[in-house]
Amino acid sequence: MDSTTTQHSNMRLEHDVIGTMEIPQNVYWGIHTQRAINNFTVSGIADGTHTALVRAYATVKRACAIANYQLGELDKNKAHYIEQACLEIENGALADQFPVDVLQGGAGTSLNMNMNEVIANRALELAGRPRGDYDFIHPNDDVNKSQSTNDTYPAACKLAILQGLEPLRQSTQKLREAFHSQADEHADDVKIGRTQLQDAVPMTYGQEIHAWASFLAGDLEAMRLLTRRLCVLNLGGTAIGTGICADLRFRTTVTSVLADITDLPITAASDPVAAVTDTSSYIEASAVLKNLAVHLKKAADDLRLLNSGPRCGFGDLTVPPRQAGSSIMPGKINPVIPECVDQCCFTIFGMDVTVNWACAEGQLQLNAFDPLIIHEILTAMTLEINAMDMFRTKCVDGLVINAKQGLRDAQMSPSISAALNEWIGYEQAMAIAKEAVATGRSVHDVAKERTDINPTELESLLDIAAMSRKLGQTCRDVDADGNIVTPENL
Amino acid sequence: MDSTTTQHSNMRLEHDVIGTMEIPQNVYWGIHTQRAINNFTVSGIADGTHTALVRAYATVKRACAIANYQLGELDKNKAHYIEQACLEIENGALADQFPVDVLQGGAGTSLNMNMNEVIANRALELAGRPRGDYDFIHPNDDVNKSQSTNDTYPAACKLAILQGLEPLRQSTQKLREAFHSQADEHADDVKIGRTQLQDAVPMTYGQEIHAWASFLAGDLEAMRLLTRRLCVLNLGGTAIGTGICADLRFRTTVTSVLADITDLPITAASDPVAAVTDTSSYIEASAVLKNLAVHLKKAADDLRLLNSGPRCGFGDLTVPPRQAGSSIMPGKINPVIPECVDQCCFTIFGMDVTVNWACAEGQLQLNAFDPLIIHEILTAMTLEINAMDMFRTKCVDGLVINAKQGLRDAQMSPSISAALNEWIGYEQAMAIAKEAVATGRSVHDVAKERTDINPTELESLLDIAAMSRKLGQTCRDVDADGNIVTPENL
Amino acid sequence: MDSTTTQHSNMRLEHDVIGTMEIPQNVYWGIHTQRAINNFTVSGIADGTHTALVRAYATVKRACAIANYQLGELDKNKAHYIEQACLEIENGALADQFPVDVLQGGAGTSLNMNMNEVIANRALELAGRPRGDYDFIHPNDDVNKSQSTNDTYPAACKLAILQGLEPLRQSTQKLREAFHSQADEHADDVKIGRTQLQDAVPMTYGQEIHAWASFLAGDLEAMRLLTRRLCVLNLGGTAIGTGICADLRFRTTVTSVLADITDLPITAASDPVAAVTDTSSYIEASAVLKNLAVHLKKAADDLRLLNSGPRCGFGDLTVPPRQAGSSIMPGKINPVIPECVDQCCFTIFGMDVTVNWACAEGQLQLNAFDPLIIHEILTAMTLEINAMDMFRTKCVDGLVINAKQGLRDAQMSPSISAALNEWIGYEQAMAIAKEAVATGRSVHDVAKERTDINPTELESLLDIAAMSRKLGQTCRDVDADGNIVTPENL
Amino acid sequence: MDSTTTQHSNMRLEHDVIGTMEIPQNVYWGIHTQRAINNFTVSGIADGTHTALVRAYATVKRACAIANYQLGELDKNKAHYIEQACLEIENGALADQFPVDVLQGGAGTSLNMNMNEVIANRALELAGRPRGDYDFIHPNDDVNKSQSTNDTYPAACKLAILQGLEPLRQSTQKLREAFHSQADEHADDVKIGRTQLQDAVPMTYGQEIHAWASFLAGDLEAMRLLTRRLCVLNLGGTAIGTGICADLRFRTTVTSVLADITDLPITAASDPVAAVTDTSSYIEASAVLKNLAVHLKKAADDLRLLNSGPRCGFGDLTVPPRQAGSSIMPGKINPVIPECVDQCCFTIFGMDVTVNWACAEGQLQLNAFDPLIIHEILTAMTLEINAMDMFRTKCVDGLVINAKQGLRDAQMSPSISAALNEWIGYEQAMAIAKEAVATGRSVHDVAKERTDINPTELESLLDIAAMSRKLGQTCRDVDADGNIVTPENL
Repeated sequence: MDSTTTQHSNMRLEHDVIGTMEIPQNVYWGIHTQRAINNFTVSGIADGTHTALVRAYATVKRACAIANYQLGELDKNKAHYIEQACLEIENGALADQFPVDVLQGGAGTSLNMNMNEVIANRALELAGRPRGDYDFIHPNDDVNKSQSTNDTYPAACKLAILQGLEPLRQSTQKLREAFHSQADEHADDVKIGRTQLQDAVPMTYGQEIHAWASFLAGDLEAMRLLTRRLCVLNLGGTAIGTGICADLRFRTTVTSVLADITDLPITAASDPVAAVTDTSSYIEASAVLKNLAVHLKKAADDLRLLNSGPRCGFGDLTVPPRQAGSSIMPGKINPVIPECVDQCCFTIFGMDVTVNWACAEGQLQLNAFDPLIIHEILTAMTLEINAMDMFRTKCVDGLVINAKQGLRDAQMSPSISAALNEWIGYEQAMAIAKEAVATGRSVHDVAKERTDINPTELESLLDIAAMSRKLGQTCRDVDADGNIVTPENL
Repeated sequence: MDSTTTQHSNMRLEHDVIGTMEIPQNVYWGIHTQRAINNFTVSGIADGTHTALVRAYATVKRACAIANYQLGELDKNKAHYIEQACLEIENGALADQFPVDVLQGGAGTSLNMNMNEVIANRALELAGRPRGDYDFIHPNDDVNKSQSTNDTYPAACKLAILQGLEPLRQSTQKLREAFHSQADEHADDVKIGRTQLQDAVPMTYGQEIHAWASFLAGDLEAMRLLTRRLCVLNLGGTAIGTGICADLRFRTTVTSVLADITDLPITAASDPVAAVTDTSSYIEASAVLKNLAVHLKKAADDLRLLNSGPRCGFGDLTVPPRQAGSSIMPGKINPVIPECVDQCCFTIFGMDVTVNWACAEGQLQLNAFDPLIIHEILTAMTLEINAMDMFRTKCVDGLVINAKQGLRDAQMSPSISAALNEWIGYEQAMAIAKEAVATGRSVHDVAKERTDINPTELESLLDIAAMSRKLGQTCRDVDADGNIVTPENL
Repeated sequence: MDSTTTQHSNMRLEHDVIGTMEIPQNVYWGIHTQRAINNFTVSGIADGTHTALVRAYATVKRACAIANYQLGELDKNKAHYIEQACLEIENGALADQFPVDVLQGGAGTSLNMNMNEVIANRALELAGRPRGDYDFIHPNDDVNKSQSTNDTYPAACKLAILQGLEPLRQSTQKLREAFHSQADEHADDVKIGRTQLQDAVPMTYGQEIHAWASFLAGDLEAMRLLTRRLCVLNLGGTAIGTGICADLRFRTTVTSVLADITDLPITAASDPVAAVTDTSSYIEASAVLKNLAVHLKKAADDLRLLNSGPRCGFGDLTVPPRQAGSSIMPGKINPVIPECVDQCCFTIFGMDVTVNWACAEGQLQLNAFDPLIIHEILTAMTLEINAMDMFRTKCVDGLVINAKQGLRDAQMSPSISAALNEWIGYEQAMAIAKEAVATGRSVHDVAKERTDINPTELESLLDIAAMSRKLGQTCRDVDADGNIVTPENL
Repeated sequence: MDSTTTQHSNMRLEHDVIGTMEIPQNVYWGIHTQRAINNFTVSGIADGTHTALVRAYATVKRACAIANYQLGELDKNKAHYIEQACLEIENGALADQFPVDVLQGGAGTSLNMNMNEVIANRALELAGRPRGDYDFIHPNDDVNKSQSTNDTYPAACKLAILQGLEPLRQSTQKLREAFHSQADEHADDVKIGRTQLQDAVPMTYGQEIHAWASFLAGDLEAMRLLTRRLCVLNLGGTAIGTGICADLRFRTTVTSVLADITDLPITAASDPVAAVTDTSSYIEASAVLKNLAVHLKKAADDLRLLNSGPRCGFGDLTVPPRQAGSSIMPGKINPVIPECVDQCCFTIFGMDVTVNWACAEGQLQLNAFDPLIIHEILTAMTLEINAMDMFRTKCVDGLVINAKQGLRDAQMSPSISAALNEWIGYEQAMAIAKEAVATGRSVHDVAKERTDINPTELESLLDIAAMSRKLGQTCRDVDADGNIVTPENL
């Protein structure tokens, strides 16, 4: 019987600075977790739902155990059992042992305590000891050795975002390729371009759709840059970045261990005190997610406009029908998938504001609101992944373009008078456009009558296919030299 | 065998504008719901989690059935079974039959279709008919009769908010009373007031704590005003507010039926076309929730400041210890409950921005983003209820004031020199305050030396208890005539 | 020569808690203002640009002088000169004497000090005394008597908003009437309604335009409610609401004087301590302005959609041409006025977030950020007034509807199959709509062929003018009993 | 007399697609500008106040003229006069000739037209021709040759931000150095660290102040990355990115010319169609400005906390007194400069939301809201520059630290019991901390009594100076190898 816990039937007794508490024997967590469960009763969402965060935290704990062992701070045996417990959690085990509310106060201390307790108790179990036998392996003295919440929690958060970036990147790339496929297929179909919702000059469907792919190329690049920033960690800084309770070499050692086991370019923050409260990488992560949402909204909104009709709208294309659109108007079909995408984007716009709040309310040596930040960012990432996968499979892949209407519209646009500027000047071209609109005729017909450009020349000037390709651009990405860049080699 | 469905083993075949689909016999929903389940895969949160919304929608459907029966649009039998099915849902049954993603596209059509199908199938069951026997009771022709998503969905949303306001009001009132109790208890304990974090003139703990209660009185009043706005509904307007497919009298009848069965002052919107896209009541609801969050944040932040210490901070009071505060600093205890409250507030600030987006993106005769709006508002309401209950029971009820320190601080504030203004003028009082700060002495001591105010007079002028009560105010609400207003009679 | 100032040539010497400073003789302000001018160098916008605020503050100061005189706190002479000086400022004089940056730190103390100094010096001048002769009339001891920044600044801010509400109301009402006029003129012109940008059931131009007017009716009502909240002031609470330095009767007296001279239903806040930091009325004011912006954006966006074309868009109507739309596409004309309105709305959406920040960062007995709040709100009000006046005179008044296209579109909508629901049921109506879309025929033609409804009946069912008026509604506001409510009697 | 303009007395007659208009002879602008002046009457702020934008636009126009000349599209003479006119504007001339409202509708067309007209008329003047003689040099056919608003306006906006980044960088660097100086001076002064406003472990003033400098180092790095993104331009894409009306080689030529004359690494966007509507660089710019604001707010808020007192607060340091703080409390001095900084930050937080709105509302081939975006970003940049300069010169440079109090507080913190963890374990250390708080004694005294650690060892363990330097870190930036990095070589 150790001094820390007493076992009654199926409960064990644990104590902390406040007093004692009975903890069910069948859970891996201890008194700190139990108090937090009781304290935070707001969102109803458990830490454990953010599996990326739980796994990342276990990875951080494992790296610390290895570093402690390497520095002689933890004996081989303890280190071994702790590492094993961490690995199990990293592989998805014990997922139900992290039940504290995601909006917990305390700057993440509860999740750290929870992690320490679960790892300690699982390690004890692996060592053939009863749960709660903290004299043998102690949550704070052993599992948390050389650590504080203030350095391990941000490290786990950043690692979780880094790992979440991979599926985000994949979904972004897949959506980008879906746009590319559609663009390729319709690279030669001419349609009307519209600026400020007014008929402008011609373009191809390929160009229009390809633009959405190009947006995403920028997002992928932004994710790459974000990765770098997220890899700067503060491990070894402990409580407030001064490194109290840690061996001087721990900072370098643990950083290098973590880089090894994650295969990420992890480095140590140059100012460990500043790093505790610097939320820059969260602001940036949220901005990257917001920018991606701006791009998704643009594509979704454009599709809603282009799909408008079926008879009294733009009608440039049709999004695949997904469900009946009205409980009262039979046969009506609505662009429900783009609308759903839009809603995800609005959610993310608001989340960026919440992240701003949480990031800007740090005080002195700590920002107490990291739990909210990471909850918002991980939620936003999942939402965007889901939104893009849905968008792609249920909408983009099935777009049907109305090439005939596109062509007819392009031919009728008064703005193609721009092609005459070089021959007759802006002002005379304006008069022709104006007359075309007023009389309902085409620019071609009016120009034939009102200018002395010879018919062949006029035909050539007003060739809308040529107009849409003035820059020689296809629907594919081109580099500065005009070479085609495929999605794969970006 | 009806024309609508065919039954194979444990599946039934349903059809819609797109085609046919097999639906499991054991579910109450039909093809429209099933398509929506498959389509919307973004948030992972089901409509059914918003029990207030599901129940409110069933109430709307019941009112419509009654109105249709009263107008001869639905026969007695059908109306009876439909009403029964609605009542069951209102009482909490079939809660698992509303599985569509809360961020569904389509302006709420999916939930309406889902509601129509579940009600129809449950009504069929009550009538002894098989599910899917829509020739007998049809989801659209019968349950949805005289209705559209565009009028019933907003009605259900507003009703859901109205019903959510009651627990919100209760939690607000309870927290307000908790503040009142603390304020009453410390009505005579003098402490330092601080403006811009600088020592100012004295006040009582009672006054300080009571201010938080007064904020909440304002929120309760705001909820009352909000109720009025939410009671204006658009039933009978059907598709775009013109009333197509509905009897002319339906609007008045259903409004009056709904007012009867809910006991709410429901009225019909004066411009049914405008009402379809007017999101004013949502903007207002969100502003009310945001203002409440501003008040909660103020109290939480003040408590964090006043609780700062234990030795190197303000130390005016101590929030109850809830859990160990640090994995590395033994004995440290943090104000985790106010921090958790703050995070809820930041969440709500972001949600207000999301609501702004969704409300401001309506187009022409519809705003497609009502599902997001109602999801955010109902989530925010629940979050605030939980935050206030936690705040009250785990923090406010257990506040311990440090009356001795409060008194000592009040006596030492240089700003109490203000009390001398009337006798020696602002400028001479300034010189005294300045010298007090420079020399570390009290205003009293310096004034005794530097002015010729007689000692008794000086004592009386610098009586900090009197200063804190210049207005004669106790910690209780007073009306313009100085009468005490208790929380109950507000 | 008084003890306060010494005059060198064209400078006078003033002093404060920090030291002494030369002030140009030709300005009315003193050392406190001069320090603030030097301190705050961020926005480049002077307090004086918010003329409503300057005037309102002078009104507050005048009310205080009268109250002080009535209570025997200020002699008749001094009170007289102070009142005169205030009146001059209220009438627009000395507008250039308030040069401090609007984003000043200090919770408004600088503007209060500035006001005290200018009033004192102008009062001295009226009394035939030199500026700076503060022994005779002192900025703090006399002009600021019984007052603090903490009670007079919020009072002035609220008064300024109240006064700004009047022109806002007028511009809102005028725009509302402009929409009404257009709606009346086109009350019988049938057009297509669109939900989710898809062809829906018919309506009239009158109904569509009238909806925008109805939104504004709601905004006018919201302004009325806001007025009530803004009229609750905290005068007499002085520094932190406890009333230090003020006669006990001052609170009641000054409230009543201010109500008299402004003719507004001013009352005293029931909890003067809470009132110092309660920003509820600002949150509400900002929400009212935001909701108005949501309405303006809706009208502007709808106009941009309806005006899309001229050939390849919706083309339901044409906004008046205001300027050439392109430097390269001759003859192109864009909806620049609605676009400008949109930008004003986006600005206001951001301002609401800024107001949220400033309102939610109060600490203990003061919110230091009132200057930002009032700057944002007054700026937003002016922006909205200007946006509405521009919108009305340069766009709404000159709308040209394309009645012919509206009618044709309405007839071709597949969604009018809804009118057949009652006769053949939702499912058969769906089949007809589907076939109509697939074959490019009208619902009427398909229904004639596929149903046995007799031709006259069918004609009547598919009468789109009747459909658009199912509710019997005209384009005018109707109350619950169907009576027409004109804009004037709302 | 040319066909375009007729001169009456001191007016010239110009025409456009709408009709004719008299323009005062003494202005350089023409009809398009005049219409825009009349149209947009909302903010009262003229384009010309954004001098960076006006100059950048002139630079873009000059690059275009050079490129057109190089490609034989513009004759030598015309090109020469146009270039001269541009250069004059770039040097600050004609600044009053850009009077259109910054919130103009039309996606920037008005500023482009304004620029074309002013350059044309000034070029005409230089050529000895009368203003309005557009047959000789035409605003659209010559000055705007190979261009559209859609490519030149974003180019000018990005160039304006790029140029604004230089002063922003300088102000950031200066503030960073100011923090460094203070940190260096107090590198050895020990003080209490605080997490969650609770006493934590010791640190130095140097470390605390240095953290604020480190934040800014991150911002400077972010500005560097932003530069790269802003250098990707779309010139040559003309109307919608397809390059209509431009020579195929123009894109490459103008990009290279602009890179030359600006000495910036300008490149051409790989997808010119996407580039027209991609607002990524604005979202990023706004995020960079927001993150900087988060950092400024952190420093300002920390200073407000640390400066709290003078007697009843933290009192770790004193910000320089800038002005009397109260109109009623004599001698009170408030931290007005940090408060002013905070307000600038709140403004920027709201602006980021406005930018989000404007960036996310693009439609099809254009985002009409670029004018609002650039207005917000340039305003935010100026505000931040001013805020930082004020912060530095009026606050940071004059900080006075209270080293004695810092030391005393550090010694009394119960959290230094953390230093005992390694010897007696977390749990026993906790008991000591708890007793220290309860009894008002120091951790040292309790530990001496309650543990058997020998006195010398205990002294050494509880050496707060050593604790604050566990990591060996000074207040200076250190790289991963522990080398000091000075601000200059970052």
